[in-house]
Amino acid sequence: MLLVADNLQITRSGLTEAVLQRRPEPIQLMVQAMQAAGAQAIDLNTGPLGRSAAADTAFCVAAVQAVSDLPLLIDTADPAAMRAGLEANRKTVLINGLSLEPRKLQAILPLAVEFDVDVVLYLLDEHSRVPRLLDERLAIALELYQHCRSAGLAPRRLLFDPVVAPLIWEDGLQRNRDLLEIIRRLPDLLDTPARTIAGLSNLTSGRGPSAAKRQLEQAFVGMLAACGLSWLLLDIHRPETVRSARNCHLLLKEHLFTWENVAL
Amino acid sequence: MLLVADNLQITRSGLTEAVLQRRPEPIQLMVQAMQAAGAQAIDLNTGPLGRSAAADTAFCVAAVQAVSDLPLLIDTADPAAMRAGLEANRKTVLINGLSLEPRKLQAILPLAVEFDVDVVLYLLDEHSRVPRLLDERLAIALELYQHCRSAGLAPRRLLFDPVVAPLIWEDGLQRNRDLLEIIRRLPDLLDTPARTIAGLSNLTSGRGPSAAKRQLEQAFVGMLAACGLSWLLLDIHRPETVRSARNCHLLLKEHLFTWENVAL
Repeated sequence: MLLVADNLQITRSGLTEAVLQRRPEPIQLMVQAMQAAGAQAIDLNTGPLGRSAAADTAFCVAAVQAVSDLPLLIDTADPAAMRAGLEANRKTVLINGLSLEPRKLQAILPLAVEFDVDVVLYLLDEHSRVPRLLDERLAIALELYQHCRSAGLAPRRLLFDPVVAPLIWEDGLQRNRDLLEIIRRLPDLLDTPARTIAGLSNLTSGRGPSAAKRQLEQAFVGMLAACGLSWLLLDIHRPETVRSARNCHLLLKEHLFTWENVAL
Repeated sequence: MLLVADNLQITRSGLTEAVLQRRPEPIQLMVQAMQAAGAQAIDLNTGPLGRSAAADTAFCVAAVQAVSDLPLLIDTADPAAMRAGLEANRKTVLINGLSLEPRKLQAILPLAVEFDVDVVLYLLDEHSRVPRLLDERLAIALELYQHCRSAGLAPRRLLFDPVVAPLIWEDGLQRNRDLLEIIRRLPDLLDTPARTIAGLSNLTSGRGPSAAKRQLEQAFVGMLAACGLSWLLLDIHRPETVRSARNCHLLLKEHLFTWENVAL
């Protein structure tokens, strides 16, 4: 499981002013801290930047890439901002993301093809909702896969996000059990080694005791890993969760076991 | 995942003298401590008790059942001791266990049929070794299943133990990845909801730093749970591991989520 930091949220982190003033340092300090904490990729969530969103996004991409070689997920629903970010890219970027929403299929999918980059596919319906039933979610994966293939994207470009549900939802437990099943079954369903991504922060979103949140995240990480999750999006500054994810990687992917490579 | 305490090891815990003197209290105190720590079943490992093994085992079963209603796994390779334990039973016992070793098939399997109890089936070859390859281990599961069915045991009586490998073995990582696969695939292979059991203590057996051991156990518990493990045999006095197992159970099996039922 490759660890993607979800911490770089421009508007939520109070970085909007730095972006508008074209000061890269506050962003770059955050990026360096994320790398030090174990990030292997970074999600750049600009939030609603306003009228200069395109130029602002380009600035953010350049600011990050000036201090980091990590893959960067450009996380915006604004096609102009997405294009600007893709044009500013000098290293590796991904599109985050696409769903069956018609305006995204029309405006974002062509960018993935034009720039030939990886793209995150959300298993949401055309109204950006998570369907209730497992079969509906699998049907959406198939439909998105077909849209992307028809547009000319290679299967290796796709990262499916089955969308983690908050546990406090009435059916949150069942939805996340279905999510594990989806991660496990997608490769067979699509007859391709379908990569998957999941955002862990959703699991315990809402009010709740933080100790309980950490425990649930750690337990769920092992389950996601065992079901074959490829990329894990998480708050990289939660060391217990990062440690769990690293030890899962050791158990599932490394070739050599030594006590020294256990994360503590 | 039902939690089975592996702590009641008569000879290893220095309880032999109490058994020989027919003093139940030291055993019963251990049983009560295991229950308090979250045990949902208890493995009674008598160890090599000597010439009075049968009477000693019967005493141990009675001693435990005088203070506990939990299912009790009688863990001995001695057919006479196993029979004595089964005869002493007044509540619920299981046979732990059987393998393709000819003397076990001849002497232990008939006891499972006669007493109509659940039985643990070790996926070991006829020399009690864990085969190197996944397919060999699956073939052994099938062979054991057929032996048990031919003898007249119902599929619901069977608990398959694919045998956790120490990580410090040269191929320990791969063997445990195969073990996860076995747990996942057995129900399809045998075309029955095959229950499974795994002994976690093996994972980190041998010398090694205890902090690293605890971390690996916690990570592996989530993986075992996600693959559908039915029973987890573990040191019930490792609270972090017990907590992980409980939170996995919450995420996978409970119907209702509340912050109060998260194990801390």
